[in-house]
Amino acid sequence: MTQYVRTLGEISGKPEGTCFGSREEVRQAKLHAHNQAGISGTGKQGADAIVLNGGYPDDRDYGEVLVYTGHGGQDPATKRQIADQTLEDAGNAGLVKSQLDGLPVRVIRGHEENSSHAPEKGYRYDGLYRVVRHWFKVRGDGFQVCQFLMVKIGSPSDVTDPELPAGESPEATPDSSAITLPGRSQTTVNKVNRKAEVVRRVKAWHGNRCQICGDTVELPGGPSSEAAHIKALGIPHNGPDVEANVLCLCPNDHRRFDNGALYLTDDLKVVNALTGTIEKPLRTKPAHKIGIEYVQYHRACWVKES
Amino acid sequence: MTQYVRTLGEISGKPEGTCFGSREEVRQAKLHAHNQAGISGTGKQGADAIVLNGGYPDDRDYGEVLVYTGHGGQDPATKRQIADQTLEDAGNAGLVKSQLDGLPVRVIRGHEENSSHAPEKGYRYDGLYRVVRHWFKVRGDGFQVCQFLMVKIGSPSDVTDPELPAGESPEATPDSSAITLPGRSQTTVNKVNRKAEVVRRVKAWHGNRCQICGDTVELPGGPSSEAAHIKALGIPHNGPDVEANVLCLCPNDHRRFDNGALYLTDDLKVVNALTGTIEKPLRTKPAHKIGIEYVQYHRACWVKES
Repeated sequence: MTQYVRTLGEISGKPEGTCFGSREEVRQAKLHAHNQAGISGTGKQGADAIVLNGGYPDDRDYGEVLVYTGHGGQDPATKRQIADQTLEDAGNAGLVKSQLDGLPVRVIRGHEENSSHAPEKGYRYDGLYRVVRHWFKVRGDGFQVCQFLMVKIGSPSDVTDPELPAGESPEATPDSSAITLPGRSQTTVNKVNRKAEVVRRVKAWHGNRCQICGDTVELPGGPSSEAAHIKALGIPHNGPDVEANVLCLCPNDHRRFDNGALYLTDDLKVVNALTGTIEKPLRTKPAHKIGIEYVQYHRACWVKES
Repeated sequence: MTQYVRTLGEISGKPEGTCFGSREEVRQAKLHAHNQAGISGTGKQGADAIVLNGGYPDDRDYGEVLVYTGHGGQDPATKRQIADQTLEDAGNAGLVKSQLDGLPVRVIRGHEENSSHAPEKGYRYDGLYRVVRHWFKVRGDGFQVCQFLMVKIGSPSDVTDPELPAGESPEATPDSSAITLPGRSQTTVNKVNRKAEVVRRVKAWHGNRCQICGDTVELPGGPSSEAAHIKALGIPHNGPDVEANVLCLCPNDHRRFDNGALYLTDDLKVVNALTGTIEKPLRTKPAHKIGIEYVQYHRACWVKES
């Protein structure tokens, strides 16, 4: 059996809507690591894919929005819940990592899923989703399951607090409507894949320690940080999504940096703009080369130099 | 002259697309405080409205996305820039406050704006926008202007890092296409208005101090905090957007709270879930009643109580 190489984002040659006859075909196409488990992932690397196939009555499938139940605690023979789910499980830990780092997760629906969005037969790759949040739920049987709210990246539901998509009922009961597959341009896919790689690499270099204050926001799901663009993305700055333009910051310092309370000198010292004093050197790592042109662009947004 | 009461969000009876003959009519309809200045707002209350009417060559109007130039530094007679713009100006400070607190800003376009999105005559109310970020730009004449990136709330461009909307060129040169006015349901408007009020009130009660750590993230534009829902909004928790369900937190503690690293006891003590120890009491204010049912709901998402 060849080793599974975990790739985040879309797999080349397997666009959204690609159908497969079996879990084994999905695995061989390198879309998902396993033949049975729902989640393909680890706490260290994040989750690259999930399968929705009716395994948990607590799942909800609203098309663009999913409430997905985690892994673990089932008796392999009877599929009955016999223990609590925890974040010790590699799959659950992987989805938490995906949430914290904003990584894309491939969603594959199987024909056994009790939903109008499921394919009639086999399995279908239905695009990239992100994990909005996770929580635990104690079920009627007294066991705790881990749940994940996921939204389709770039869909109308891809907002901070997603609500029910149009035409979906709260219980997501199956109906006869077919899911629309808008597809996704190769440009968008490349952008999502690339972005995930940049974020993952920068956070890994710094072990989620803030390059300004040195703190890490520790969570039950692991250490956490934010990828902060030095020269902002999008209109009108159009900074590039490359490692040299990204810092690993805690959310508080990210907000300070984005709003000009902190900026950097050309020799990467952190200046407090409110006091005008140089506070300390930026924490750097040899592997992480920072583009001074981006530092200068950011500084020019906040300090008028003569 | 009657006093202008600053109201955030949509004004009852003046839906998106409402047209006016003059700035004075806009003012009397209570959509904007002034007859001439572009920004209606103060650093304390936020900006309730802006007018786009060709006042600054640095403005860019992409319809759903705006790059809006701030106020100040122009000679009143010649309209030439004679000084730097700063956040001392009430209008600029107001837009920064709107950004930091996520408040809605009414956008009114005037016929003198050099854009395909401008009305042919008079002024038109074009809906609610939010401020994504601000920065300073030194122009060719050596003067610094304050700029604001704004996106239409609920539009496809209402994302973290907006890019050019479809069909818009980077320079937003005028063309013959008319702007589409999709309108907005009263429900959406009420929700946006209500949300802004809740956020503003909770942050004001606590003076932007984090109810957990007691710190404030100080920015050049003023003190900053986040409004954190105790019982999450949206699918599947459907927490209400009311003051009793909102905490004033710093971004770091917001992330900790949302991911179960911190939770609250019924007598509002803060528990560190990683160590299991009660850390300190939540900082409270008499005016801010916190709903214990929301605290219990949040805790049940992270702690299995027997």
